[in-house]
Amino acid sequence: MMVLITYDVSTESEGGKRRLRRVARQCENFGQRVQNSVFECLVTPAQWTDLKHKLEKEIDQEHDSLRYYFLGANWERRVEHVGAKETYNPQGLIVL
Amino acid sequence: MMVLITYDVSTESEGGKRRLRRVARQCENFGQRVQNSVFECLVTPAQWTDLKHKLEKEIDQEHDSLRYYFLGANWERRVEHVGAKETYNPQGLIVL
Repeated sequence: MMVLITYDVSTESEGGKRRLRRVARQCENFGQRVQNSVFECLVTPAQWTDLKHKLEKEIDQEHDSLRYYFLGANWERRVEHVGAKETYNPQGLIVL
Repeated sequence: MMVLITYDVSTESEGGKRRLRRVARQCENFGQRVQNSVFECLVTPAQWTDLKHKLEKEIDQEHDSLRYYFLGANWERRVEHVGAKETYNPQGLIVL
């Protein structure tokens, strides 16, 4: 399933930058970084349980937030990109 | 329909900060800012055409990007929030 993950963190502090790097690293195991703090992850339900657990350990829950959007099976129909930076489809097709 | 809008812009420059403020202002006419550069907008197809046009005029398409996710009618089932900052449902219910 496709899960869109958005992460709100202040990157003005070193701690925030570090947390963003760690969240990105976890997400990139399952998909791609489409914007600075937006990730599209293609996961099985078991992988999602594991990834979610890891992400929620990395963040500072008092100051940061994660938001998950479950885009379902037909997620490619749901996405449109405008402006800088092409991105790739983790299932192998280019999505501009 | 619910459109999730994510905006990637460098806010290190004054120009970037100004563009983010303007994009936020447009989006807030139709919904809410759920994270610093993530907006959930509840629009009719005609409103969407208008909003999309305005957003794409505001951004610097060489350096910034907008990404749109069309979450459909059952969008509330698709969203989960973790960590700081509660947010509200533009249809009137609280979504945590």
